Amino acid sequence: MDDEAAIRTLIEAWASAVRDKDMDRILAHHGDDMLMFDVPEPLLSRGMAEYRATWDLFFQYSTGGPRSFNVHDIEVTAGDRVAFATAIIDIFDSSLRLTVGLRKDGDQWLIVHEHHSYPVKVGE
Amino acid sequence: MDDEAAIRTLIEAWASAVRDKDMDRILAHHGDDMLMFDVPEPLLSRGMAEYRATWDLFFQYSTGGPRSFNVHDIEVTAGDRVAFATAIIDIFDSSLRLTVGLRKDGDQWLIVHEHHSYPVKVGE
Repeated sequence: MDDEAAIRTLIEAWASAVRDKDMDRILAHHGDDMLMFDVPEPLLSRGMAEYRATWDLFFQYSTGGPRSFNVHDIEVTAGDRVAFATAIIDIFDSSLRLTVGLRKDGDQWLIVHEHHSYPVKVGE
Repeated sequence: MDDEAAIRTLIEAWASAVRDKDMDRILAHHGDDMLMFDVPEPLLSRGMAEYRATWDLFFQYSTGGPRSFNVHDIEVTAGDRVAFATAIIDIFDSSLRLTVGLRKDGDQWLIVHEHHSYPVKVGE
């Protein structure tokens, strides 16, 4: 599997884990020094303990059953050891922008950065 | 200059161009297929004409004179042909998160993706 396909598969598996609320699988392919720019505050979260906490918060607000977390329009730009990817995630009847930064560790790609955001509605 | 230093310099020059409201310098190091996830709607902008339009909108709301657009905590992860960088930008008395994706074209790094966002205040 080439790098672009491997990263696409990794992102789809991660989104599937979110839909399943399976924390172990959500955290399975991340670097220890992970930098998270999440939708809600804080401004940033660093490291796996803080990254996990962002998902604890997320699931706290989605206790009403399974929700969509459908990733589409994934675009991967991969080099030899560094890559980034962009995608749109449909969730809560709205569309979230996702940027992921990855680093290759041996023959495995690891997510070391995520940036999640909604656009601000004009006029708000 | 190594890749990490070159990318850091490029981001600092871009931020300086924003402070100077110098559109030519803002757009000087971007790829034609640029994908922008900006703070306000739309969800995404694609290509240089749309990217330029996001800055037209930005400057429309900052006609009161020069404003800070100070980039700090720049972290660069660079491979052979692909890189990404994260930073915080202080602006409008608040802090913006910035992720930049880059591709090397010959010996020049080009920005092909930007993601700008504010965290949503908890309770809003």
